[in-house]
Amino acid sequence: TAMDGYRGFLGLLVSALLVGFLSVIFTLIWVLHYRGGLGWDGTELEFNWHPVLMVTGFIFIQGIAIIVYRLPWTWKCSKFLMKSIHAGLNTVAAILVIISLVAVFENRNARNIPHLYSLHGWVGLTAVILYFLQLLLGFFIFLLPWAPLSLRAVFMPIHVYSGLLIFGTVIVTTLMGVTEKLFFVLKNPAYSTFPPEGVFTNTLGLLILVFGALIFWIVTRPQWKRPKEPNSTFLQTNGGTTEGVEGSMATNSGNNMDKSDSELNNEVAARKRNLALEEAGQRSTM
Amino acid sequence: TAMDGYRGFLGLLVSALLVGFLSVIFTLIWVLHYRGGLGWDGTELEFNWHPVLMVTGFIFIQGIAIIVYRLPWTWKCSKFLMKSIHAGLNTVAAILVIISLVAVFENRNARNIPHLYSLHGWVGLTAVILYFLQLLLGFFIFLLPWAPLSLRAVFMPIHVYSGLLIFGTVIVTTLMGVTEKLFFVLKNPAYSTFPPEGVFTNTLGLLILVFGALIFWIVTRPQWKRPKEPNSTFLQTNGGTTEGVEGSMATNSGNNMDKSDSELNNEVAARKRNLALEEAGQRSTM
Repeated sequence: TAMDGYRGFLGLLVSALLVGFLSVIFTLIWVLHYRGGLGWDGTELEFNWHPVLMVTGFIFIQGIAIIVYRLPWTWKCSKFLMKSIHAGLNTVAAILVIISLVAVFENRNARNIPHLYSLHGWVGLTAVILYFLQLLLGFFIFLLPWAPLSLRAVFMPIHVYSGLLIFGTVIVTTLMGVTEKLFFVLKNPAYSTFPPEGVFTNTLGLLILVFGALIFWIVTRPQWKRPKEPNSTFLQTNGGTTEGVEGSMATNSGNNMDKSDSELNNEVAARKRNLALEEAGQRSTM
Repeated sequence: TAMDGYRGFLGLLVSALLVGFLSVIFTLIWVLHYRGGLGWDGTELEFNWHPVLMVTGFIFIQGIAIIVYRLPWTWKCSKFLMKSIHAGLNTVAAILVIISLVAVFENRNARNIPHLYSLHGWVGLTAVILYFLQLLLGFFIFLLPWAPLSLRAVFMPIHVYSGLLIFGTVIVTTLMGVTEKLFFVLKNPAYSTFPPEGVFTNTLGLLILVFGALIFWIVTRPQWKRPKEPNSTFLQTNGGTTEGVEGSMATNSGNNMDKSDSELNNEVAARKRNLALEEAGQRSTM
């Protein structure tokens, strides 16, 4: 069954990569074939970088960053390496998000259109602010070695929750953006007459939603969580780990299939040692 | 800390109820004050039932149905009673959804506007189909007493995941609907000039998002899960329970704070007994 589980994970991972990649390709086809192409001249061609970079960075790359700890072949890599990859991917995404925002702001300025009047703008701005806050706090609390374990324990469930909340909010924002744009540009023939661009871009919207659903499924399966490092879980000083409280979205009840009795008993001991830390973590999240 | 936890839960529950209730009130004010009111005559007044009933049923009531097992004062009620309330609330929501869809279809027919051409329509239709499928499967597998425990074990993680996925998708759909509607109706003064209706309805969109975020937080906290029934978890025949595999979105590592050693050891025994069931459940979800 370990082999079955591995194959199941691979199947879902490949599906997620495929659907995510297709979403980026569909966005490129949309702007290149239907929306006149890409440019950096203040016109709609500059605006077109906005969807391309958002789907690439804020959806595809952020989605991969979320599940990077789940890849079984990375479980022998150090936790610090995996954190660096997680932080690195999110940093790349953040840079693409900034360029994407510059594109839309420059385009709006050039055309004298007000900024941030629509619900897409309000929710999107909220998501961007939370994302940068998350990146900053994650960097100082989890990547740098100085934060006390107790702080990490308190902050980990919040980090996991807000990461998934931001990812979901970005998907909401993107689908509102697609809706806005299609109602703006599809006048003749109208969106309501099922023109090819409407059908094509609706399909893009569904692809983005399916990508999000796959990432949520992968990240919330308990059996695909990175195993706790033996002896390093509760008292590690350099590059420390907080696996004991990390997966607040995933139950432990599922990943003990192949464990021997002694391992289970060790876990009980570990959980007892962990009570104080968890209590601290829970108090803060209430 | 048990008292702290209880107060924390109450605070979040009251916030969720308040924000959910405010969302319904804001939707009512939107249609009554800005969109001409409610009616059942094929005009826009009939369409206006669509947002009112969707926000009431598909968002507010569905959200409450999701967290109903988390209310600590219901933990002494039978599991069957709680399942009935969960199913009942979702059935009320489903009825409101149907009426809401009739309103929009009748309005579109009367005005000769095509159905389901926009991304809002596509995603919304998907969410409705999945919701009715979820309701039907939940009824036969979990509420009726005849489904074998192994089937429940296999199906529970899928039920929990797809319930939250549908709830999230409904929020996506609602915010796309708001976007559509505002771009349609806010022409003079335009949406981009920050008219009161635009600002007010954007605020409604944010309220709905905050409601969703609160529900997700409450339902994914391990310490607020309904405790497993002693002795009835693994072999119950009438109205059976499946707590052992239910909370696939919530870790068990957090809710052992106040447990004695013997309880922890009992849990290990219980987990060993549970391995076969969980293995079955996991195979199916991969």
